[in-house]
This record gives sequence, C-alpha cells and structure tokens, in this order.
Amino acid sequence: MSTSLAAGLQLKLDDNGLIPAIIQSAVSGRVLMMAWMNEESLNRTIEIGETVFYSRSRKELWHKGATSSNRQKVQSIELDCDSDALLIRVIEMGPACHNGTDSCFDTALIFENQDVL
Amino acid sequence: MSTSLAAGLQLKLDDNGLIPAIIQSAVSGRVLMMAWMNEESLNRTIEIGETVFYSRSRKELWHKGATSSNRQKVQSIELDCDSDALLIRVIEMGPACHNGTDSCFDTALIFENQDVL
Repeated sequence: MSTSLAAGLQLKLDDNGLIPAIIQSAVSGRVLMMAWMNEESLNRTIEIGETVFYSRSRKELWHKGATSSNRQKVQSIELDCDSDALLIRVIEMGPACHNGTDSCFDTALIFENQDVL
Repeated sequence: MSTSLAAGLQLKLDDNGLIPAIIQSAVSGRVLMMAWMNEESLNRTIEIGETVFYSRSRKELWHKGATSSNRQKVQSIELDCDSDALLIRVIEMGPACHNGTDSCFDTALIFENQDVL
C-alpha cells in the first residue's frame, strides 16, 4: 500500500495501512518513543504541527498530549530511503511516556557494552 | 507472541515474530535507520556486539556491514515501556544507508517548521 505526499513522495504503508514513526527530542537528542501513523494521522500532524498517531489498540487517532498536555511540537519529519519509516523531531511539552519518564526507552536497559563507550 | 530475555524481560513480537529496532549513532545522536529483529537476530547482536537484523525481503539474518564493512558496534540496547520497540545506540564504522549517506533519513525532508527551531 502506498500513499502520495505533497512533495510527490510515496509512503510505503504496511498491510494495516500504518507506518512506524520514531519520535526524537530536538532538545536533548533522546529518542522518546515509537508510535504508528496512518495517512490521516500524518496529514493531521502536518496540519496542526503536533504529533497525532494512530492507536492500534483503540483503533483511532490519538493526538499526543491532548489530555495530559504533554504535546509534541513538530520541528521536522523525514522519510527514510525505502519510504517505510518516519523520523519526527519534536519539542516536547512534557514527558513522552505514560509512566512519567522523559522517554519510553527509559525503562529497560537490556544490554550495555562499556568497551565501545 | 513474546519471548524471554536473560533479564526476565519479555519482548512483544508482532505476528511475524519481529520487533522494530531504532538505530541511533552514539557519536552524533543522529537516528541512522530503522530495521527489524527477530529473537535470533537480537541474541546474535548481543553475542557479537554488532547489529544483526532480520531482512523481511530476503527472509534471513543480516549482519549489517558484513559485506560493506559498515558495521555498527553496539553500545546499548533499550526496550520501551510496552516492550514492542528497541532503541540501539551504536558506534558506526561507516554510513548506515545503502545510498552512502550517514543516515537512511537523509533522503527526504517532508515537513519542517522553522518556528519551533
């Protein structure tokens, strides 16, 4: 499945019409979370300048921070070389994670190699 | 589908037994690429300390840089709060992208908002 963007680019969506979106803080450089977008949520994100995802569990659009106020203001959206992943740099208005941590990746370090630090 | 990690953590794999892996440069902070791992490729990554992915097109393990020598030495692997995405920080030995760019996201900027810079 693919969909056209304004610039004539094509998104490669998966069988469910979704594309993964990596959210990175433009402030700290920390990767904050990974979520999913469909065509409508990407268009809405571009329209309002804040991240809007597609919730696979609730099967609906999800404007990040609409209730918690931890919105993410979008600085840039980049599409990767094979058009099947998005990198979105944001200015975050609060923690990304529902656990209250800055990043959803702050929970579990499963491997570390000090030798390459 | 879920699988056990040494630390007692569970990975949440998709219907194809895969989990997305976000690769970030520990040097520049740039997000380099997104690829997929299965349990075997994650174990192999931990074992050799370099990224090993699962190629969905070739349906086989793919040791990044094995032929190009653009390997990625793994500094850390973090699992997100809902256990369905990995963030892997690496020291890269060369460009991540098959196009020769540092990052697979260097190709297409589809949105930019200078106001939030």
